[in-house]
Amino acid sequence: MHRTKVRIVEEALDANNTIAQANRADFDRAAVTVVNFMSAPGAGKTTLLERVVGEVPGVRVGVLEGDVQGSMDADRLASLHVPVTQLNTDPSFGGECHLDANMVRSALAALPLSEIDMLVIENVGNLVCPAEFKVGEDVRVMVSSVTEGEDKPLKYPLMFRTCDLVLVNKIDLLAHLDYDLDRFLYNLDQVHPGVERMLVSARTGEGIEAWREWLAELAVRSGQGAAA
Amino acid sequence: MHRTKVRIVEEALDANNTIAQANRADFDRAAVTVVNFMSAPGAGKTTLLERVVGEVPGVRVGVLEGDVQGSMDADRLASLHVPVTQLNTDPSFGGECHLDANMVRSALAALPLSEIDMLVIENVGNLVCPAEFKVGEDVRVMVSSVTEGEDKPLKYPLMFRTCDLVLVNKIDLLAHLDYDLDRFLYNLDQVHPGVERMLVSARTGEGIEAWREWLAELAVRSGQGAAA
Repeated sequence: MHRTKVRIVEEALDANNTIAQANRADFDRAAVTVVNFMSAPGAGKTTLLERVVGEVPGVRVGVLEGDVQGSMDADRLASLHVPVTQLNTDPSFGGECHLDANMVRSALAALPLSEIDMLVIENVGNLVCPAEFKVGEDVRVMVSSVTEGEDKPLKYPLMFRTCDLVLVNKIDLLAHLDYDLDRFLYNLDQVHPGVERMLVSARTGEGIEAWREWLAELAVRSGQGAAA
Repeated sequence: MHRTKVRIVEEALDANNTIAQANRADFDRAAVTVVNFMSAPGAGKTTLLERVVGEVPGVRVGVLEGDVQGSMDADRLASLHVPVTQLNTDPSFGGECHLDANMVRSALAALPLSEIDMLVIENVGNLVCPAEFKVGEDVRVMVSSVTEGEDKPLKYPLMFRTCDLVLVNKIDLLAHLDYDLDRFLYNLDQVHPGVERMLVSARTGEGIEAWREWLAELAVRSGQGAAA
């Protein structure tokens, strides 16, 4: 029974990869760099986006906002006059705990791809399943808040292993926590040695300039930035 | 295609409910009260358990520790000389992001049911899928950390709607956050009017006595406590 289940899961992931490649081809054709942006609930994804979208030098950023229900985050971002498209997994996609390639594909027609250079896909807040499903992204960025504890890379290794940048958020709270940053970074290197990481505070703005520059350089590397 | 998917999900949940009822019957036969304990990653479930297991008056508490991988939390709790059983969803259950009734059933033989009055099942850290799968519990307790923001009841309504107690954790950090506790409680009442809630800090111990007493009274209500 377990073997059957594992096989079904593998087939679903194969099918997902095929659709992700089709998305990837469409994004390439539109010359849009795509970031899959992931974290646990409440780690600060939306606030970190509010801090940079609209202000990445030479890069027009749009957002695809993934949530189980509601459009609160999309409303927050839209107030910054950035193109935002809402994608809910409930009810159309069974209330899934993650975005997959097919859901993103269903939103393609609503995305203003000709008006943007970069699309940030804010995934559902979850450290497990979002890591399993490619959606057609160029890179994966994840947020790990220091309030979540040092052990998270060891408990959710796939998420930390498959990302290209880790934003360590809420560092303004370090003085008030029993959190060992060195231990977190050690654990991170255990599951993803040397992965790029930035210490940031969406609240105070510390480290945000580096995060904005990282996005600008990503666009250049992908051929969509100002210097391309 | 969506309709097919929804049907498959419904059939899976029906099958899960049947197994959950079998678990429930086995727990009743053993006179064990069962708590399904849920939260986002890093909200403080394990620390809140460390604070109370072994110290609930007249109630012998055991823990079934659910994680995708590893046994860090189980090791922490076992050091308190409490019966702890580890249940990993990877590799045996495809790395699932939640526990389901079948997984709990697979662990039944390893649980020392005759030696405990209460079993706390610490679910995988996730605010979506754990809420969909009954495992045979008497009650559901969830933890929402104030660092996660006030909007979480609105974004993950099923989790907040199906729980019997909400532990609002990390209140020692309130002075350092832009968090409106009244707004959170208002949002909570929007999705689950009047649900029981406690303000706690696993770090400072504030509110922990009330949480311990709640568990003791739960055992009495269920017929397994000291006064039964």
